[in-house]
Amino acid sequence: MKVDRALWAKKKEAMFRRLLEDIHIGYLDEDISDLLLEIFKREDAFTISSCSGRIIFVDAQMPWMRKTSTVIFKKHKPITSEEFLEFLNKPILSRLWVIVTGPILHISTATLKEARTLISASRVAGLKHSGVISFRKDGIVLELRSGIGLTYVVKAGDRIFVDPTTDLVSICNEVLMKGKDRLRRLKEVITKLES
Amino acid sequence: MKVDRALWAKKKEAMFRRLLEDIHIGYLDEDISDLLLEIFKREDAFTISSCSGRIIFVDAQMPWMRKTSTVIFKKHKPITSEEFLEFLNKPILSRLWVIVTGPILHISTATLKEARTLISASRVAGLKHSGVISFRKDGIVLELRSGIGLTYVVKAGDRIFVDPTTDLVSICNEVLMKGKDRLRRLKEVITKLES
Repeated sequence: MKVDRALWAKKKEAMFRRLLEDIHIGYLDEDISDLLLEIFKREDAFTISSCSGRIIFVDAQMPWMRKTSTVIFKKHKPITSEEFLEFLNKPILSRLWVIVTGPILHISTATLKEARTLISASRVAGLKHSGVISFRKDGIVLELRSGIGLTYVVKAGDRIFVDPTTDLVSICNEVLMKGKDRLRRLKEVITKLES
Repeated sequence: MKVDRALWAKKKEAMFRRLLEDIHIGYLDEDISDLLLEIFKREDAFTISSCSGRIIFVDAQMPWMRKTSTVIFKKHKPITSEEFLEFLNKPILSRLWVIVTGPILHISTATLKEARTLISASRVAGLKHSGVISFRKDGIVLELRSGIGLTYVVKAGDRIFVDPTTDLVSICNEVLMKGKDRLRRLKEVITKLES
């Protein structure tokens, strides 16, 4: 199983155009766009997709059952107590989950050597659940993830599980920001790598 | 980067002896030992470590900060409301977290082909965060994980965040059992694979 270098390069070019577009329309915040550009600069790597970390509110029986879930709120920045209370008090169909996720990146590399370099860099930066998730003709695909995150059920039907007067919201925000820290560390580590 | 087959085989033998010991002393429950034996049967794979999924109570500022965390309770089976209340009411130093994790397996393979086969099988079984986490002379190391899990802060200092009269405990147990289901599916998928 060898990566088809020409196919890979064509994909990198297309993804680079899309990245520049995303930056141009303001779709990406600076924190992550700097990191993505740093990865694109490397000869044997490009990013496929990324999330800098977010807080979502999901109406679902179980939050990983995507097909039967409804995301009712999504934010890549800290949430306010008002936002939390607003969604806590809205009627739902099943259960209301608040999920804070750390950063996730999907990267394609042209070589196994580059895949190993980036996995090691991710581990140093605290993204410890990073690895190769598929080996394809058009690239070796990596998923970089940290162990940072919260998954809360806050309501079932109209029965509220949590006390909204507590530090819950600030803990959610604290977790979100810890995730963003890892992203900054990843950028530092990758910038210092030999190409 | 090639796996040293002799070194790998030696490690497989040692890990197999340890597995038999663990089964003999009753350290492993049947659900997971059947799966592990099935993986060992394969010519190019063996398991390094495994967890069938568990519920833990952790006293920590952030639960992934292992060095400054104290695990005060751990169970691989469903918990009771009495257990939950007992630990909810014990004094803690920082914050009390209840964490339900799905199954995690670490596997070593002798070839990239076998790594790819097992990653595909894991994905089919619903362990979607599975990948190669390192390429070493003594084996290609895979981590198989699902997206199943909960991470709750239930108390900070002596301030309780959750209403213990709700379905919280049964939802924790439901999540735990969903994780164990994935393990059963993984065993089925692997048993049906061509070697």
